[in-house]
Amino acid sequence: MDERIPQGDLRRFHALAVTLANESRQIIHESLKAGFEIKHKPDYSFVTSVDLKVEERLRELIAARFPTHGIIGEEYPPTRADAEFQWLIDPIDGTEDFVHGIPLFGTIIALHHQGKPIVGLIDQPLLGTQVSATLGGGTYYNQQRIRLRDNDATPSGSERVILSARANFTRYGDHGHFFDKIVRAHPNHRIYRTCYGHVCAITGAADAALDYGNRIWDLGASQILTEEAGGKYICVQEVEVADGGKIYGAVFGKARLVASIASVFETQKRSE
Amino acid sequence: MDERIPQGDLRRFHALAVTLANESRQIIHESLKAGFEIKHKPDYSFVTSVDLKVEERLRELIAARFPTHGIIGEEYPPTRADAEFQWLIDPIDGTEDFVHGIPLFGTIIALHHQGKPIVGLIDQPLLGTQVSATLGGGTYYNQQRIRLRDNDATPSGSERVILSARANFTRYGDHGHFFDKIVRAHPNHRIYRTCYGHVCAITGAADAALDYGNRIWDLGASQILTEEAGGKYICVQEVEVADGGKIYGAVFGKARLVASIASVFETQKRSE
Repeated sequence: MDERIPQGDLRRFHALAVTLANESRQIIHESLKAGFEIKHKPDYSFVTSVDLKVEERLRELIAARFPTHGIIGEEYPPTRADAEFQWLIDPIDGTEDFVHGIPLFGTIIALHHQGKPIVGLIDQPLLGTQVSATLGGGTYYNQQRIRLRDNDATPSGSERVILSARANFTRYGDHGHFFDKIVRAHPNHRIYRTCYGHVCAITGAADAALDYGNRIWDLGASQILTEEAGGKYICVQEVEVADGGKIYGAVFGKARLVASIASVFETQKRSE
Repeated sequence: MDERIPQGDLRRFHALAVTLANESRQIIHESLKAGFEIKHKPDYSFVTSVDLKVEERLRELIAARFPTHGIIGEEYPPTRADAEFQWLIDPIDGTEDFVHGIPLFGTIIALHHQGKPIVGLIDQPLLGTQVSATLGGGTYYNQQRIRLRDNDATPSGSERVILSARANFTRYGDHGHFFDKIVRAHPNHRIYRTCYGHVCAITGAADAALDYGNRIWDLGASQILTEEAGGKYICVQEVEVADGGKIYGAVFGKARLVASIASVFETQKRSE
C-alpha cells in the first residue's frame, strides 16, 4: 500500500515539476530561434538535439534537488530503477510536430510514488498553456482550478473524442479493429498525435481521449491530471513488448463516456 | 474561358482579403474577451454570435469596396449570385473548436472569377498565422513566400496525412469505406476538423490533406493556396445534396502523394 505523502513534500515536488516545465519551455523557445539538429530513430520516429538537451537538463535538476529519486525518460536509460519515487519525463511529446512547426507538442512530467502518480504536468510551450495536478490538491489549468463534468446536452455519437492514429493500434500487434470500432461509434473524432489531445480531455475541451500503444512517459501525467479534475481514467492496455518495455493504453475524460469507450476493449477481450 | 485579370485588380482584391482577415481576427479576439452567445444549428453543429458578427462585417466591407461582386458565406444567403466575381467566406471554420477553446479554428476568404479562384486566404487568429495567395503571384505564409516540394526521404506509409473525420464521409451517403481505406494506407494521419489541416498541407507541415464532405466556403481558398505554392489540388467529390447545395471533397499538398490518395477515389468509382 501507498504511504501517505506529507503535504509539504507534495508542494515541493509540484514546485520542482513547474520549474522543470519552465526550463523545458525556455530551452524549446531558444532552440526554435537558434536552430537544432534532427535525426531519425531506427523506427523512423524523430529525435532532435532539443529532446536530448531538455531531458539532460531536467535530469540534472531532479538529481540536484532529490538525489534519491529515480528517473525514467524517453531519451536516456532509467536511473535508480528501484527507488520509491520515480520521475517520468517526455521532454518533447510530439517531436514530429515540433520538427514541422505544428504547435501541439508538449513536455510531460510526472512523479510516481510506489507506482502511483502523485504529481502530473503537461506544458505546451508554443500555446503557452500548462495543466498540473498534485494528489488531493486538484487540477489547475494556467493557475485556474478546473473540474470536469459529464455533459448531458451532447447527443450520443456527437461527443468530441480524441483518438490515437491507427498506426498506434498496429505497431505492436493487430489491434486495428479497436480503432475501426471506435471511429464508427464516435465519428466526431480528432487525432492530434501529441499530448495536446490529453490536455483537451483533461480540461473538457474534448469529452474523452483514447491514447493507445504508448509508453509510460506518454501517459505518466494524465491519470492524476484527469482524476484530480473529477474525471475518470481507465487503463485498457498494459503489455510487455519485445524490447523488454511495456506498452500502455488508456481512456480518460468525462466519466460516462470513458466507461463506454473502455467497454469496447472489455467486450473484445472477452470475445478473443 | 477565364479572362485575364489585370495585376492592379489582383493586388486590390488581395489587399481587401487581408483587410477582411484582420477585421475578423480583431472581432474574434475582442469576442473571446467580452464573451459571446452559442447556439446549435438543426444538425447540432455550433453557431455563435461571433460567426454572425464576422460574416456581417465582412459582407459590409466587400459591398462598400466592390458593390458589383457576389458573396457566398456560411451563415447568410448568397448575394448577387449571378456576378462574375464571387467572394467565399467562412467566418469561423471550426466553430466547435472555437467554442471549446481549441485554437485551430480559422477564417477562410476566397475570391473566384467565373468559378476560378484568383485570391485565397486562411487566417488563424489564435495561432497568429496567415497564408494567402493570388493567381500567378505565389503563396505567402506570414509574409514569406513558400514552396511545396515532394519529399523523397519519407518512407511510403510514413507520410503525414491530414484527414476529415469519419463523420464527413457518412453525412451525405455511406462513403465510410474511403475513410477506412485511407487510414490503413496512411496510418500516420491527423484529424483536426478545421482549416488548420489545410494550412499544414499548404505549408508542407503535413504532406497532404484530404477534406471530404464539405461546402464550397470550406474549400474555396485551398486550391489557389496549394497551386501557387507549387503543390497539387485534386477535386474528388462534387455532388448536389437535398438542400440544393453542393458538397465537395479534395486532396491537396505534395504532388505525388496527392495523386496517390486521389486514385483511391478513382479506383472505387470504377468498381462501383
